[in-house]
Amino acid sequence: MKKTWANSGLDLHLDLPASRVRAGLEAALRDAVRDGRLHPGARLPPSRALAADLGIARNSVAEAYGQLVAEGWLTARTGSGTWVAPYRPRPRQAPVLAPAESAVPRYDLRAGVPDLGAFPRRAWLAAARAALDAAPDHLLGYPDPRGLPPLRTALASYLARARGVSVTADRIVVCSGFAHGLALICQVLGARGGTAVALEQYGSQAHRRVVRAHGLRCLALPVDGDGAVPRALGRAAAAVLTPAHQFPLGVTLAPRRRRDFIEWATASGGLVIEDDYDGEFRYDRQPIGAMQALAPDHVVYAGTASKSLASGLRLGWLAVPAPLLDEVVTAKEAAGAQASVLDQLTMARLLASGGYDRQIRHARLAYRRRRDRLAAAVLRHAPGVEVTGIAAGLHAVLRLPAGQNEAGLVAGAAARGLAVEGLAGYRTGGASHGPALVIGYGRPAGHAFTAALARLGAALAQAAAGPAAGPPR
Amino acid sequence: MKKTWANSGLDLHLDLPASRVRAGLEAALRDAVRDGRLHPGARLPPSRALAADLGIARNSVAEAYGQLVAEGWLTARTGSGTWVAPYRPRPRQAPVLAPAESAVPRYDLRAGVPDLGAFPRRAWLAAARAALDAAPDHLLGYPDPRGLPPLRTALASYLARARGVSVTADRIVVCSGFAHGLALICQVLGARGGTAVALEQYGSQAHRRVVRAHGLRCLALPVDGDGAVPRALGRAAAAVLTPAHQFPLGVTLAPRRRRDFIEWATASGGLVIEDDYDGEFRYDRQPIGAMQALAPDHVVYAGTASKSLASGLRLGWLAVPAPLLDEVVTAKEAAGAQASVLDQLTMARLLASGGYDRQIRHARLAYRRRRDRLAAAVLRHAPGVEVTGIAAGLHAVLRLPAGQNEAGLVAGAAARGLAVEGLAGYRTGGASHGPALVIGYGRPAGHAFTAALARLGAALAQAAAGPAAGPPR
Repeated sequence: MKKTWANSGLDLHLDLPASRVRAGLEAALRDAVRDGRLHPGARLPPSRALAADLGIARNSVAEAYGQLVAEGWLTARTGSGTWVAPYRPRPRQAPVLAPAESAVPRYDLRAGVPDLGAFPRRAWLAAARAALDAAPDHLLGYPDPRGLPPLRTALASYLARARGVSVTADRIVVCSGFAHGLALICQVLGARGGTAVALEQYGSQAHRRVVRAHGLRCLALPVDGDGAVPRALGRAAAAVLTPAHQFPLGVTLAPRRRRDFIEWATASGGLVIEDDYDGEFRYDRQPIGAMQALAPDHVVYAGTASKSLASGLRLGWLAVPAPLLDEVVTAKEAAGAQASVLDQLTMARLLASGGYDRQIRHARLAYRRRRDRLAAAVLRHAPGVEVTGIAAGLHAVLRLPAGQNEAGLVAGAAARGLAVEGLAGYRTGGASHGPALVIGYGRPAGHAFTAALARLGAALAQAAAGPAAGPPR
Repeated sequence: MKKTWANSGLDLHLDLPASRVRAGLEAALRDAVRDGRLHPGARLPPSRALAADLGIARNSVAEAYGQLVAEGWLTARTGSGTWVAPYRPRPRQAPVLAPAESAVPRYDLRAGVPDLGAFPRRAWLAAARAALDAAPDHLLGYPDPRGLPPLRTALASYLARARGVSVTADRIVVCSGFAHGLALICQVLGARGGTAVALEQYGSQAHRRVVRAHGLRCLALPVDGDGAVPRALGRAAAAVLTPAHQFPLGVTLAPRRRRDFIEWATASGGLVIEDDYDGEFRYDRQPIGAMQALAPDHVVYAGTASKSLASGLRLGWLAVPAPLLDEVVTAKEAAGAQASVLDQLTMARLLASGGYDRQIRHARLAYRRRRDRLAAAVLRHAPGVEVTGIAAGLHAVLRLPAGQNEAGLVAGAAARGLAVEGLAGYRTGGASHGPALVIGYGRPAGHAFTAALARLGAALAQAAAGPAAGPPR
């Protein structure tokens, strides 16, 4: 019902719902103040008068006035009436809107995300139910800032077994993905007076942003066929490495290089941050153990569930050198962020039950098949393109013949509805590798993989045919 | 089976399991290097010889050597043998241990945690299942740093309806509890050149630590019967307030004070950070709306699921003024932490289905009953103690008669197996309130509440009887 507030001297329309009259009156008055229809200092009608005018109980009006006085919208003095409190009117906001989601390309072979369709929804829910059933109430309170003990115990055991990490549960710190872990370490390095962190010259731009956001400079480590080169490390407080499978070039850090970095760390007091982002996925042999075990006091090992389960879980873990542990935990408390205990308990259960290993084995097989299909497709459509970095992981680097235009190929693929990325986007500083595409073959849903490969093949074939070829149909 | 490595010239015992021989050999060799039993530079026997000695296939030995070379433990040159790589031996670590859990007191009436037994496990799991069933795969990828759109939409609508917050979904930023939200704002304030933040003189020490960890000074706002006093705000970049129910004193911020803080903020460019930690729980009347709506461009509203569901969820939300939004999102990306998309989707579903409101209503009723029982127990056992701050929230302040010893009472309760806290622990600077206990009546499990109250009553009665009374039995 639409009512007019006739006796107030103000042109004020109040829409009151038929039920919940008092709440409706409050909302209408708030809106009127917000809109500027009721000006600061305006006197409101006596509750008795407004009640009669609106045909509602006087009590409802008096209670609404009281509520709005308590909230600061109105002021009242006993016996002398009710006014609109001082308030800066501002334009009425648009009603609650769903923000636009970022566009999802039709086919997507960009690296960094696994096949999200392979997330074991049923196994996760079953583990969540079992974990919640078994959890005593107190585990649902504020968690230990290092993470829940059952999860840290399960992780220490898993990491020792599957990745050769040398760690005990008390040195595991659960975090919310690699970027969070890196931010915590940067926080500690900055507090210790560090000024720079070395990162591989080809790598994640987001990680460089995290480093810089903590006031640290980024140094660039060259990457060659043996992985990162331990050069220009002089003033670095830490070196961030991807030893198992360089991201994105895909090489494994050579044994000699591993030792060189460890020697640098032990000699200089520097820290190696080992980003083991896809260490579980190795196809030609058993996974290469983490380099952390070579010097657990000088290496922070970092792993996540972002590739093995789902990036959106935002669940990761650090194996922290004992001398650094307190500082990392303090930094974590200061930053205030923690993973949900429900997810922590679920993950612990999945690890302890073997469900996590099962998921890894299934995924490894599926990704290996995709890798082989990718290599075959490239060979068929563009034999001049070399497929590298495929011994492990969820992505490959397609090295284009000299003279081919990386950006043009990316654009050509986009015109076919396929998102791919050139190697250039991962680079900082001058190019030391020729034109290439970074292909995340793990990403598409299973049903879309064939079509995505076909589009990639077509784009490569067109690029190979040379710039004289027409635009994509 | 226990095997002796007889022909190596080293006193080396390798425990090899009967199955998975190669992996066992690798682990044994890693251990031997780690322990220092195999010294850097020591030459390993040829694979053929070791295989014969151990009675295993030569291939297994060769593969194990290859693996350890790749991991950096050994070095090899074709045709000239295998050596232990340079390595600093370090003491063998203890096997994986479960860290000790912090002691859980038998009865606990400390504030800050709700009844974790009331967490709606079944409803949460059902919502999680429904949310996962409905979620398209891409929602399981890296989330929008502001939080998932479905959750932000549901929160904007809930906050407008239940808390009178003036916000649209695009200005909601999902975070991991209040401390995380506060850390993000402090990050922004520091980057803008802010030097100090005003916090209520009685409040959470953890929040003060978060402020200081971001290089900002803490100013103390006095708290009287009308809530925080807008004094000594001069250089503050922000004021952190608990308007609905001051923590821990329990008063509601008076209307005049609300306007004073808003005036300060608009005049000085300062920010009000509204910590609405238990705004849903008001017993004598409908909840008092958030002060954010008075000036949405000058107030950051912060809410969490820590009191309404479970602290361990680590799920919170900010309604951010438009001019601050980009900086907050940038700070969040740099800090790398995000809430799990599974929890975000579940929470969105719980909000949209009405399940969250249902939980709030149940909890409000239950807490109100507890509050009444607490007040009655205190009146019965210690009529000289005044129960205050109980119009809302999950805790009360028991003001002790002048001369009573707060710390002694806390110790007396502890001797009875009951954890309680004195007001002093929440204070910074000189005392402006007399001795008091802060009692979190929401915390104990339902079945333990009666016993906890009885212990509290006994401790209060003993304290009232004076220091002459003997120690607790």
